[in-house]
Amino acid sequence: MPPPTHREPPVMTNPGADRVKSVRALSRRSVRDKTGRFLVEGPQSVREVVAHRPELVVDLYLTAESRARHADIVAAAEAADLYLHEVTDEVLAAMCDTLAPQGLAAVCRVVTATLDDVLAGQPRLLVLLTNVRDPGNAGTVIRGADAAGAAAVLVSDASVDVHAPKVVRSTAGSLFHLPLVTGLPVEETLVRLREAGIRVLAADGAGTTLLPDVDLSGPHVWVMGNEAWGLEESVRDQCDEVVRVPIYGKAESLNLAMAATVCLYASAAAHNR
Amino acid sequence: MPPPTHREPPVMTNPGADRVKSVRALSRRSVRDKTGRFLVEGPQSVREVVAHRPELVVDLYLTAESRARHADIVAAAEAADLYLHEVTDEVLAAMCDTLAPQGLAAVCRVVTATLDDVLAGQPRLLVLLTNVRDPGNAGTVIRGADAAGAAAVLVSDASVDVHAPKVVRSTAGSLFHLPLVTGLPVEETLVRLREAGIRVLAADGAGTTLLPDVDLSGPHVWVMGNEAWGLEESVRDQCDEVVRVPIYGKAESLNLAMAATVCLYASAAAHNR
Repeated sequence: MPPPTHREPPVMTNPGADRVKSVRALSRRSVRDKTGRFLVEGPQSVREVVAHRPELVVDLYLTAESRARHADIVAAAEAADLYLHEVTDEVLAAMCDTLAPQGLAAVCRVVTATLDDVLAGQPRLLVLLTNVRDPGNAGTVIRGADAAGAAAVLVSDASVDVHAPKVVRSTAGSLFHLPLVTGLPVEETLVRLREAGIRVLAADGAGTTLLPDVDLSGPHVWVMGNEAWGLEESVRDQCDEVVRVPIYGKAESLNLAMAATVCLYASAAAHNR
Repeated sequence: MPPPTHREPPVMTNPGADRVKSVRALSRRSVRDKTGRFLVEGPQSVREVVAHRPELVVDLYLTAESRARHADIVAAAEAADLYLHEVTDEVLAAMCDTLAPQGLAAVCRVVTATLDDVLAGQPRLLVLLTNVRDPGNAGTVIRGADAAGAAAVLVSDASVDVHAPKVVRSTAGSLFHLPLVTGLPVEETLVRLREAGIRVLAADGAGTTLLPDVDLSGPHVWVMGNEAWGLEESVRDQCDEVVRVPIYGKAESLNLAMAATVCLYASAAAHNR
């Protein structure tokens, strides 16, 4: 028998293999918590993790077609010495949460920052998600925070797991652009933020101050509540201001992600004026 | 046999009935186009259509539980002389596109405005959706346009059907708050808008002018392109300015609904300063 002509591992073709099942299991929070790993699906997100946080990538899976189409990602992954595994479409589909993973997925390590790390950077703009439960909303807020130049996103212990597949997809790569601090107890966190000289602004449809009337020039954090019932009263009471995005038409409200984006962009405008 | 004690029709209990099937069929665009009707699901949207456009409602279906829980909607519907039909949970589920219609749905007439109607009102703020294909994005932009006080939403002939169930849900009732003009040919529409003295601003990640640098004090329309590939060059060429929302962090872009909301709120701020 001739020796193998190259060092590449064989193409993975069996959707029922144990390894495939263990990747698929990462769509469950309990498995992510136990293993400290999560799955990143699709070229946009995989490109961003390879470019910005290659040290997080444990294994990168891709189809032959994807290897040809996304030569930029492959080159960056090889430059970072990552493990590339070629798989069939069937194997990739069996690994992924989404129906159309578009040829690429990466198993990554969950790495989060601490509040100390974030505060040491003297942040001027932060977001704190409390009780945010919808993965699409959470992901979109993280993307908006990134776009608006926030220093980090803080996530309370009662919010959705930001490493869930739908959150990761909704961030469109922003998950790898700025530090995340997760599992924070809200009230203690607000005390620490205020001690650090950061103004605490709640964004809430029941707020008494209108967004255009708020002084956003100094360091501040936007505290976002639950999609349906907003902020808890105990949290609102700890905030310096409860701010409402004005509604000029007949809409009852904006959704959480839209309200957060409008607030964050008002902050960015004030900081970059 | 005693005479019936009240005029209420009997509770609909058969999920396989022809009437149930004909309501369910409204989730298909061809059926909406043929019948000129669409389905509005859930208490939030049904409340808004009953309150703001009761003349659109053909039939209102609700469960017994919902009749008790949403007494405000029932009272408004009875005051408007609407037909209320009591149905079982199974019948309602069989009628609806969503898995959880929350006890209420209404079959409504599709009624749209014309560009002439809209221009006659001397609008100061408009949105034009061109090639917007994702129902959630389209619905969220309509909601954002409503919140920001836009006079109407214009929709091109190549965009998603704004009466599709997922668009209707995403508007959270805003579909019934401001006029919609649908099926518009884009280039002709831009000519007419400019003739009416309305500045045409394209929102595009490839724009050369930054949003904070645009004069938004006069009447203008925001032209939004496709989620993935933005605006067609022929359309961009017809715009007075191609405007980009600044990205302060590492995000590649905002999604369509977020970008539209940020632009619309910048307009609203300029108009309400």
